[in-house]
Amino acid sequence: MAESNLIYGHHPVTEAIRAGKAVDKVFFQQGLRGELEKEIRHLTKAHDIPLQVVPREKLNKLTKGTHQGVVAFMALVEYMPLEDIVPFVFEQGQTPLLLLLDNVSDVRNFGAICRSAECAGVHAVVFGQSGSAPVNEEAMKASAGALARIRLCRVRSIFSAVEWLQQSGVQIVATALEARSKKVYEADFTAPTAILMGSEGEGVHPKLLKMSDVVVKIPQATDFDSFNVSVAAGIVLYEALRQRDF
Amino acid sequence: MAESNLIYGHHPVTEAIRAGKAVDKVFFQQGLRGELEKEIRHLTKAHDIPLQVVPREKLNKLTKGTHQGVVAFMALVEYMPLEDIVPFVFEQGQTPLLLLLDNVSDVRNFGAICRSAECAGVHAVVFGQSGSAPVNEEAMKASAGALARIRLCRVRSIFSAVEWLQQSGVQIVATALEARSKKVYEADFTAPTAILMGSEGEGVHPKLLKMSDVVVKIPQATDFDSFNVSVAAGIVLYEALRQRDF
Repeated sequence: MAESNLIYGHHPVTEAIRAGKAVDKVFFQQGLRGELEKEIRHLTKAHDIPLQVVPREKLNKLTKGTHQGVVAFMALVEYMPLEDIVPFVFEQGQTPLLLLLDNVSDVRNFGAICRSAECAGVHAVVFGQSGSAPVNEEAMKASAGALARIRLCRVRSIFSAVEWLQQSGVQIVATALEARSKKVYEADFTAPTAILMGSEGEGVHPKLLKMSDVVVKIPQATDFDSFNVSVAAGIVLYEALRQRDF
Repeated sequence: MAESNLIYGHHPVTEAIRAGKAVDKVFFQQGLRGELEKEIRHLTKAHDIPLQVVPREKLNKLTKGTHQGVVAFMALVEYMPLEDIVPFVFEQGQTPLLLLLDNVSDVRNFGAICRSAECAGVHAVVFGQSGSAPVNEEAMKASAGALARIRLCRVRSIFSAVEWLQQSGVQIVATALEARSKKVYEADFTAPTAILMGSEGEGVHPKLLKMSDVVVKIPQATDFDSFNVSVAAGIVLYEALRQRDF
């Protein structure tokens, strides 16, 4: 990551977090104790920012300067709370269309998915704070700039996000090549919907599949493997657009 | 490219070409004249293989051995003549579904498109011998192995391929964000169809668009750029599958 995305030193880092700036993660120096440690632990927890303890040498290498034991990696983009977006979309008289990503860790796929999501007018792309692709320059490039436009929600738990959405009247449509899966065009996307896509290797977590309102699959003419996750996301989004008369 | 994909020396190269092996291109030594030159020029022309004249040092570097002035890059896959495939598909009682790629030069996009094409049961992926992505290891990886299964046609001219397909009763459905474009779900994919996709930067060549029977666009909810070409190909293929009741 470019050095320009780093903030370091006690006051710069704590102030950035307090101001609500989008921080991807914080590196804290191994063995350092005292007020700074307490403050950083408290602040990162309160703001849902991943904290990683690393050797002093790593911080020296990153900053070439006085880091005082703490370095923050600033996100290229701002994150928004899911709880703010959904009511806002309803209030605007629109039908929510969201995209939930369960452990999509490939940066290029993540970027390409966000590009499709922006084309499809998705109201927010939601992903977990661990296991997801970093929102970095490569992701930005693969998104053709869409990452700078689309609303992004980084949540502590996709499970909680799914529960909260369902309680808010948004159905969860998961994709999986399962026996019980409907064909994607048999699902109703005209209702408030969050489309749930899984990781390339593992697919959607079985527990999340169980929680989902509908499980769909993309039809195939052969038994070959399956569509790439970014292509699959594009297809499901297209089906939603088609049903919503775009 | 791995050395194992190379064949070099007078007889090995000419025999490989005569045997109809899939050769991606031939490098011939600058300044070399005589029978070998005539034979190589004749053979590569007759078999539609790109020929490139290069300095002797380049050949030395590639082969570390006695190249005798000629090196052939073997394709990872076999190519098939389009003229053999379409009649065969008709004879089998199937409705042709082909994919034509006009200058799709990004290796990863090319691989991802072939992956989707194999999932969708496309009868052949057709691309021009110049301006297209190389069919190499990276393309193979991006295709998740689909490149080893799907029928590939490398043609001298996409224009001629389009004309030949139309004469054979196959409609050309091109994708472009043009004013006259229909929405993709308004086109009829139950007829024999070749889907024509253009390059990332340029789209489908204007002359090819003019020759096409139908021009379609993928609906969007925003004015953002457009879908990535491999996502767009996946969406059009999905629409064909949907209409064909898969």
